[in-house]
Amino acid sequence: MNTSPSSHGPVRWELRSKRTLVSTRVLDLCGYRYFHPGRGIEKEFTCLVPPDWVNVIAVTREARIVLVRQFRYGLNDFSLEVPGGVIEAGEDPVAAGLRELGEETGYGGGQARLLGTVHPNPAIQTNRCHVVLVEGVAPILVQDWDPDEEIEVSTATEEELVAGVVGGRITHSLSLCAIMLHRERRRGQI
Amino acid sequence: MNTSPSSHGPVRWELRSKRTLVSTRVLDLCGYRYFHPGRGIEKEFTCLVPPDWVNVIAVTREARIVLVRQFRYGLNDFSLEVPGGVIEAGEDPVAAGLRELGEETGYGGGQARLLGTVHPNPAIQTNRCHVVLVEGVAPILVQDWDPDEEIEVSTATEEELVAGVVGGRITHSLSLCAIMLHRERRRGQI
Repeated sequence: MNTSPSSHGPVRWELRSKRTLVSTRVLDLCGYRYFHPGRGIEKEFTCLVPPDWVNVIAVTREARIVLVRQFRYGLNDFSLEVPGGVIEAGEDPVAAGLRELGEETGYGGGQARLLGTVHPNPAIQTNRCHVVLVEGVAPILVQDWDPDEEIEVSTATEEELVAGVVGGRITHSLSLCAIMLHRERRRGQI
Repeated sequence: MNTSPSSHGPVRWELRSKRTLVSTRVLDLCGYRYFHPGRGIEKEFTCLVPPDWVNVIAVTREARIVLVRQFRYGLNDFSLEVPGGVIEAGEDPVAAGLRELGEETGYGGGQARLLGTVHPNPAIQTNRCHVVLVEGVAPILVQDWDPDEEIEVSTATEEELVAGVVGGRITHSLSLCAIMLHRERRRGQI
């Protein structure tokens, strides 16, 4: 990559302290106090601190990818997504992905591995979202939904998924990341 | 897409009321009270309410894509991303993209259009992130950073970008979405 010679090099701020402003069921809202060595100033920035998340690309023996459709409270509408959820404290991302896949969809079996890791929003949010690939799944488990979960399970080909993304029918940014990582790795572009 | 006949159809919750729990510089933390018609219950869910955001795929006349590298407080590290930022109240997404591109990088000119729209996190967050494509940009403007911004500007080919995503050097989920939408539309897969 080319860097313009006229660019200014950004300085690394130093994290001095953290405090929790509000604690909710899904995340903490915190104040992170940073020091800028070049300018000699301290400033507090608001950060969201959720647990890490996991999303799953689950490919059936028929080469179809498992999807979930559910009502989402932020969107106030239904959303079509890949399965996923919150990683429990100390839980391995791959184990968490397999657990969420089974609970939400009843699909299981196959070979699982970590495909990559993204940051949902490094500007204001601290957590990561891991992407787990499980190949060769089948509907062999019993779904186990959380109290407020109601999920419609479906499958689609990779081409249908990409058409859904480009056509605006799949809009969850973290589902897009999972699909992109799977697709680009499969393409073997690098 | 195939839907399993054994799936349960999810019910649409009805939004009854909203209240702001905490207001910060970057977003509001709100309580959204929903009613479930099937179960006859009401429940409050915590939602994040930021303004809409915009990310920009800016392609130079040499077919290189403009990138920014900056320190991110959520990540506590530097992050390599496409340019973007917050859409001001009443601002058009394409105008906002061009404004952010110019302010952050000094690149301007060219032809701009909306490439797509994603939801950063429909589960708990209400806002959208638009993706704007600007083709034919050049470094013709004067950068205009916010007080705490320090940005290193670079350019890369599309292939270098994808290698950065797959190799874990570009991890901002919304940058991945912008790159994916650009790439899949360019491929004309649908």
